[in-house]
Amino acid sequence: MHSIDQYRDSFLEELNKITVDKEPKNLYEPVTYILNLGGKRLRPILTLMSADIFGADYKKGLSAAMAVEVFHNFSLVHDDIMDDAPLRRGKATVHEKWDLNTGILSGDAMLIEAYRFLESYNGDQFKKLVSLFSTTALQVCEGQQYDVDFETRDDVSIPEYLKMIEYKTAVLVAAAMKMGAVIAETTTENEDLIYDFGKNLGIAFQLQDDYLDAFGNPETFGKQVGGDIIENKKTYLYLKALEQSSAAEQNSLDQLFSIQPTNTDDKVATVKAIFVESKADLATKQAIEEYTNKAFAILDKLVITIDKKEALKQFGLWLMNRKV
Amino acid sequence: MHSIDQYRDSFLEELNKITVDKEPKNLYEPVTYILNLGGKRLRPILTLMSADIFGADYKKGLSAAMAVEVFHNFSLVHDDIMDDAPLRRGKATVHEKWDLNTGILSGDAMLIEAYRFLESYNGDQFKKLVSLFSTTALQVCEGQQYDVDFETRDDVSIPEYLKMIEYKTAVLVAAAMKMGAVIAETTTENEDLIYDFGKNLGIAFQLQDDYLDAFGNPETFGKQVGGDIIENKKTYLYLKALEQSSAAEQNSLDQLFSIQPTNTDDKVATVKAIFVESKADLATKQAIEEYTNKAFAILDKLVITIDKKEALKQFGLWLMNRKV
Repeated sequence: MHSIDQYRDSFLEELNKITVDKEPKNLYEPVTYILNLGGKRLRPILTLMSADIFGADYKKGLSAAMAVEVFHNFSLVHDDIMDDAPLRRGKATVHEKWDLNTGILSGDAMLIEAYRFLESYNGDQFKKLVSLFSTTALQVCEGQQYDVDFETRDDVSIPEYLKMIEYKTAVLVAAAMKMGAVIAETTTENEDLIYDFGKNLGIAFQLQDDYLDAFGNPETFGKQVGGDIIENKKTYLYLKALEQSSAAEQNSLDQLFSIQPTNTDDKVATVKAIFVESKADLATKQAIEEYTNKAFAILDKLVITIDKKEALKQFGLWLMNRKV
Repeated sequence: MHSIDQYRDSFLEELNKITVDKEPKNLYEPVTYILNLGGKRLRPILTLMSADIFGADYKKGLSAAMAVEVFHNFSLVHDDIMDDAPLRRGKATVHEKWDLNTGILSGDAMLIEAYRFLESYNGDQFKKLVSLFSTTALQVCEGQQYDVDFETRDDVSIPEYLKMIEYKTAVLVAAAMKMGAVIAETTTENEDLIYDFGKNLGIAFQLQDDYLDAFGNPETFGKQVGGDIIENKKTYLYLKALEQSSAAEQNSLDQLFSIQPTNTDDKVATVKAIFVESKADLATKQAIEEYTNKAFAILDKLVITIDKKEALKQFGLWLMNRKV
């Protein structure tokens, strides 16, 4: 087994091989730009880790890791357009730095490039990877569509929300891990188990994101704390608060989520107070733990050595205790 | 050999199998909408015809034909956003009927769906098809980027223009035919020859489009005659006219292509007069013939029976004598 840092370094080395001077420049420069904005590189690390855990030379997973990361960045570029987001990791988004058309077209090119990375694999493995990749990519689109749809709905249920984040976020984490398993040519049982492990971890990861967005430490969080509240995003915290509030608080929350004040501090403070008052914060932490434990329970069924199970567990714990 | 109408009918039957009630509705309804707006179905017909010509049951090509047509429609949806086009085949474009975000996201879903249709094939054939498809799809994006870039450049050369239409239009026609050849498991030589046949035919087809846009019969053309002139598009006609004009006409053309008058009739008439005066219209017809003949010359090298060569030739002639 190797360390997270080793996986990340190997991946970044692979990423640096992408040629930067391809023509037409206006198509490929944004691709290099977004891929080099940084980030945790969580998904590609998981592919490499999974390949390693199931007994392959983890470097065999590098092309699949590239496919996963390039796809993830494609989705960021198009999502940023849809969310009208000016910033990504503190830098201008592609459609802001260039323009709308560049954002659309460079995103399209990245989606196709992602598929091309899979051409490093052959035969049944290639087909399995492409098929998994397409299924996942389509679910990510469906998740994004649900997210867009939810903006204009006021009757979103918690199961619906969980399905949305499963599709929008968790299935890609799951697929990233399953790809490593496919590359390592492990059993179908192991492939499916690691997929479920990744899926549950991915849901916990997104719920953690929701939680940190409101209750993260502004000094370590990296993004504007309260961003979701300012944008009236119906997160798990919000839906739980609605569910667990008095009629008066529900009204207050409803009303606060229909305005966009210039000075947002009061709004953020009031909403956070309702989240705490209604114990939505605790319910969210509980849900994070629940999904993390679901993931950990799957480890028991995996046919791998105990030290590898421990490595996956440590990774899960690290992920859930992050501040960013 | 079967008739064009048989290929089209089979394809439309396959197209009708697409389930229309998939969730989320806002993602999939636009897909069904754009795919059912009609059109000549040129590309899928070519896949089926090519499979037939190289000795396969042409119905084996239906999934690849779907992939090609769904991809083509993905590119239309995203291009229409970039061109700010309100109409497509006389109906509202996806981003007009729904909105920008729907156009982007449904387009993305179609690109992925196109890959999924290729999963009907196996082994080496699957990899060959996916690889050809990705290469082609990326070239189409590059072609679209060149097209966007050309809008703000006043030094576009004719070779650059030809490369742009090769990428934006011709390679998909070429790949559609090569896919049929791959499915029929013919020789690599035949695969490459039919690709080149399709590519040259595709270039001729696009030049014909340029020509008809200005000189088509308004009663049969189906689109607004002079549309490219109104939108200041630097087509082959325009570039040839610049090349073959006097300095005074060049100036006049330059100036006409920098304005957007409310009443466009005068502008269209004047520009068309310059196209005729400079013999750009004849040069365009000549180029169409040249690329058509290049395609026909390739037929000689193909190892297929004479009646099949004749069928391809008739198809080429039909395509070049179209009024729509």
